[in-house]
Amino acid sequence: MPVFNAPRRDHAFVLFELLDAERQWAGLPALSAVDRELAETIIDTAGKVAEAEFLPLNQSGDQGGCSFEQGQVRTPAGFRQAYRAYSEGGWVGLGGEPEFGGQGMPKMLTVAIEETFFAANPSLYLYPALSAGAALLLAYHAAPELQATWLPALYDGSCTGTMCLTEPHAGSDLGLLRTRAEPQEDGSYLLTGTKIFITGGEHDLSDNIVHLVLARLPDAPAGTRGISLFLVPRNLLDEDGRPGQRNAVTAGAIEHKMGIRGSATCVMNFDEARGWMVGEAHRGLAAMFTMMNYERLSIGLQGLGAGEIALQTSLDYARERLQGRAPRRSERTDGPADPLIVHPDVQRMLLTQKSYTEGGRAFAAWLGLQLDLARHGEDATVRRQAEDLVAFLTPVAKAWFTDRGLDCTVLAQQVLGGHGYVTEWGLEQYVRDVRIAQIYEGTNGIQAMDLADRKTARDQGRMAGVYADQVAAFIDSDDCPPGWRDTLTGLLEQFRQSTAAIVEGAAEDPDWAGAVACDYLDLVGLLSCAWLWALAAGRAQAALDAGSTETAFYRAKLATARFFLLRQVPQGQVLAQRIALGSEGLGVDALN
Amino acid sequence: MPVFNAPRRDHAFVLFELLDAERQWAGLPALSAVDRELAETIIDTAGKVAEAEFLPLNQSGDQGGCSFEQGQVRTPAGFRQAYRAYSEGGWVGLGGEPEFGGQGMPKMLTVAIEETFFAANPSLYLYPALSAGAALLLAYHAAPELQATWLPALYDGSCTGTMCLTEPHAGSDLGLLRTRAEPQEDGSYLLTGTKIFITGGEHDLSDNIVHLVLARLPDAPAGTRGISLFLVPRNLLDEDGRPGQRNAVTAGAIEHKMGIRGSATCVMNFDEARGWMVGEAHRGLAAMFTMMNYERLSIGLQGLGAGEIALQTSLDYARERLQGRAPRRSERTDGPADPLIVHPDVQRMLLTQKSYTEGGRAFAAWLGLQLDLARHGEDATVRRQAEDLVAFLTPVAKAWFTDRGLDCTVLAQQVLGGHGYVTEWGLEQYVRDVRIAQIYEGTNGIQAMDLADRKTARDQGRMAGVYADQVAAFIDSDDCPPGWRDTLTGLLEQFRQSTAAIVEGAAEDPDWAGAVACDYLDLVGLLSCAWLWALAAGRAQAALDAGSTETAFYRAKLATARFFLLRQVPQGQVLAQRIALGSEGLGVDALN
Repeated sequence: MPVFNAPRRDHAFVLFELLDAERQWAGLPALSAVDRELAETIIDTAGKVAEAEFLPLNQSGDQGGCSFEQGQVRTPAGFRQAYRAYSEGGWVGLGGEPEFGGQGMPKMLTVAIEETFFAANPSLYLYPALSAGAALLLAYHAAPELQATWLPALYDGSCTGTMCLTEPHAGSDLGLLRTRAEPQEDGSYLLTGTKIFITGGEHDLSDNIVHLVLARLPDAPAGTRGISLFLVPRNLLDEDGRPGQRNAVTAGAIEHKMGIRGSATCVMNFDEARGWMVGEAHRGLAAMFTMMNYERLSIGLQGLGAGEIALQTSLDYARERLQGRAPRRSERTDGPADPLIVHPDVQRMLLTQKSYTEGGRAFAAWLGLQLDLARHGEDATVRRQAEDLVAFLTPVAKAWFTDRGLDCTVLAQQVLGGHGYVTEWGLEQYVRDVRIAQIYEGTNGIQAMDLADRKTARDQGRMAGVYADQVAAFIDSDDCPPGWRDTLTGLLEQFRQSTAAIVEGAAEDPDWAGAVACDYLDLVGLLSCAWLWALAAGRAQAALDAGSTETAFYRAKLATARFFLLRQVPQGQVLAQRIALGSEGLGVDALN
Repeated sequence: MPVFNAPRRDHAFVLFELLDAERQWAGLPALSAVDRELAETIIDTAGKVAEAEFLPLNQSGDQGGCSFEQGQVRTPAGFRQAYRAYSEGGWVGLGGEPEFGGQGMPKMLTVAIEETFFAANPSLYLYPALSAGAALLLAYHAAPELQATWLPALYDGSCTGTMCLTEPHAGSDLGLLRTRAEPQEDGSYLLTGTKIFITGGEHDLSDNIVHLVLARLPDAPAGTRGISLFLVPRNLLDEDGRPGQRNAVTAGAIEHKMGIRGSATCVMNFDEARGWMVGEAHRGLAAMFTMMNYERLSIGLQGLGAGEIALQTSLDYARERLQGRAPRRSERTDGPADPLIVHPDVQRMLLTQKSYTEGGRAFAAWLGLQLDLARHGEDATVRRQAEDLVAFLTPVAKAWFTDRGLDCTVLAQQVLGGHGYVTEWGLEQYVRDVRIAQIYEGTNGIQAMDLADRKTARDQGRMAGVYADQVAAFIDSDDCPPGWRDTLTGLLEQFRQSTAAIVEGAAEDPDWAGAVACDYLDLVGLLSCAWLWALAAGRAQAALDAGSTETAFYRAKLATARFFLLRQVPQGQVLAQRIALGSEGLGVDALN
């Protein structure tokens, strides 16, 4: 009995009350046609599609799973119809290029939509989510002919996209990959090799599939600087541009997995499959990072969505289930027992979920805004600053949201007790489904090393400084409620000291950045959520002071912010303390 | 490809090097026949049975699961043979009463055996684990005739036991239960009602099953003080004492669950089923607590066992899998990549598992010793002190070990990346299997409230003081390495202050204890592990100083202890800080 109503009110609060979306869009010519009314209509409609088409297939899709026979993948019952409803609604191209049939909506808005679909049915949503990422990659890096051929098909859903990176011996270390691409006289290439863990590598939802494949040219240097990127359609196009003859790319098997069982995770065999190069030779990994960064934020939203549906389901249960007596006599009912929600430990589990998920939602939208500024900003300084913030914070959003997503689903399951462990209520599926989000698109450990090593140590803390300045400016502004100022200042100082420790430590000790990477990422996640909760508390108080009648909504914001301030922010000191240790206490001595 | 070798050497270290088991046993007449040689033989033999009979069925048992048809449960292929090997080896009665065919082994030793079997196959081990708990309950509370009838059958494995507490509307709140027991003229009772989530309620492993059932007599007062305990056999015994006619108790269904799929979790229908009262009328819950406390520690050991197999499997993978380059040039190999284990973040994940699991193992054995002292101690003061320590720390062992067990399995899965998410490697099953241990036998939230409210606030901190004195005596002794003294003193002081805060806070605010319960439990778990890691570090250093040739083993102990000291102990300050808040920041304002 999963409970999910798209959190429309909270999305509107984040966009229009926290982040002044209308003013932001008005300042960017590419987005100036978007206003609050349009955005709220899109949020509402997406919610309806998610609730009516995606949610009812979440449990049945898990139970039925995908089946595989002779190279064909059959998705769970109902997925085809739901996918059709989704693609006919134009949702794949929501953030896509208007020139090719996309709708050019701001990323700041589309993050809300992505979260909504991920919450309602992550297995089903993965198919079009990858299409959107593939389209973004092509929009940035492909030659105009390839764009004209493939973008409209991706946007209208008649074709889906995949990213083919991992090979059996090359996971986090892509430099080891072996798939080869032989140039042909007509300018195309023939690709040969095996890719594993390919999400949506084969399925029955669309007429065609286009694979974006990392491979090596014959003359390629070893390592990551010898990797090129190719577009390989499952079906080659006929003279009319319609999917025709099968290309030599086939699914060899699908994986049996802990969760996301409605999503086909395929072994893909390329046997002289025809493809076309995207971008420059040997620069494929850089191009693929366009898609990977998009997908990283997207996967972070999978974590947020899981947190939202977990919260809604467990909150509903905690209100209904009568068990035990309220500690306070004044809260006791006349019945034989009181609802679970009266117990402080249950409140702790629910508030943890709510504070992480709503705090993360604000952070995601703010990061979406930075992506919009980086892309559409008219001023080069603005664009550069936004690019720095995106580079620094994308790994944080991916790992922090998904780690907290697991925490939230586990807490929600715990609220239900034994009923959370049996399949009937759906909670155990949320845990299994969100668990992958900490692993794919680069494990959260890889995200942390990207942040601590590449984006901090090697960058000498420059991007970290750009980020710290943002938070500092907020603390000094009228937006920061007085009651938050000291705590935020302390947390920011812990962040600055930790950054300095990493930059200095890494210069002396090659193990430094890796040793503290996960703690540093958690510290940035914590600071980002704390800052946005402070902003939310200030805006909620202002609304109440202005006489808003939505008192329950705004009081809930204030109470959740206070919970986060009092009970989550103190973790920062332990993180900072561990970061100061560098690699002390680690090593292989204990592991022999 | 789960990897598991029973940790024989570490069990011996804990028993004979940390806790002076031989001296302890020699001081207790009931256990004085047990010596190191016997104990090590038992540990070794149990390891062989676990490795040869239990482990090979772990994955297949999950995949096959239990099936249910017309009231019959079929366990997974191979379970019957493995159960026979286990029961013929006399393992069910290992800690049982010698008078009735048990072997009377110390709890301090049997915890090692329980952990081993839980590690190798938790689904299979649950069947006899419950028998051992049922036998313990009967040994303490049943009339001699019932003992003579049922204990030999439980010990030889021809009968298994269950505990029937939960009803559809009565989970954590047993006061709500409705199952009725009508007294009959012959002194027996007829029981009617429905119980759910009954582990091993029906199966095909043994000739008979005996259910220990909580129910109400017709004249029973409402709430928990009107609950009595009954023994209800599945098959009534014929004139020769052999299982004969079926009693009116049947399985109505089995649950579909996240994990432990080889363990049959049953809905049990009692329809005027014949039973016999165990202990006194209306005092059934107190008697059931004998079994529940036994099972609580036992379920804690499920958490430890999961941590051990997770560590072994992920450590094996981290040594073999080549991916990426060692940060230090000096550690790089000639191959195309280095083993995962060179990466500090991977070391962090492995050391976290190792420090929790080995620290927990020492704590479990020490708690086992207290159970032995409470039962067999000759001096009343010794017995009373041990009883206090058992009462205070049993909920900690249950919740801390299982919470850390989930952490460990999730970390192990993360070490394997995508391979940890697919079923093939077994890691995802460890996560699913251990997850129930945080829920059954009282959720970990219930454990925490038992600790913070009943055992601390209502006890005015008396038992907490007995515990603190133990740790303080250690710090003052020569056993405490000098480098640990300040840190342990600080952590102990955080514990004492937190205890005082709970006792004082609870007097003012009924929500206090519940609000901080989980943090307080974590603080006790952390302090207990820190204290035992300090002891381990001291003993390991002494062994090295004495010229032991097992340098790798003892150096690993020192390095793991150091990791725990530097990187885990600092969490204590955040826990203490949150405990000092009481119920501030909680409430239902944010949850409307």
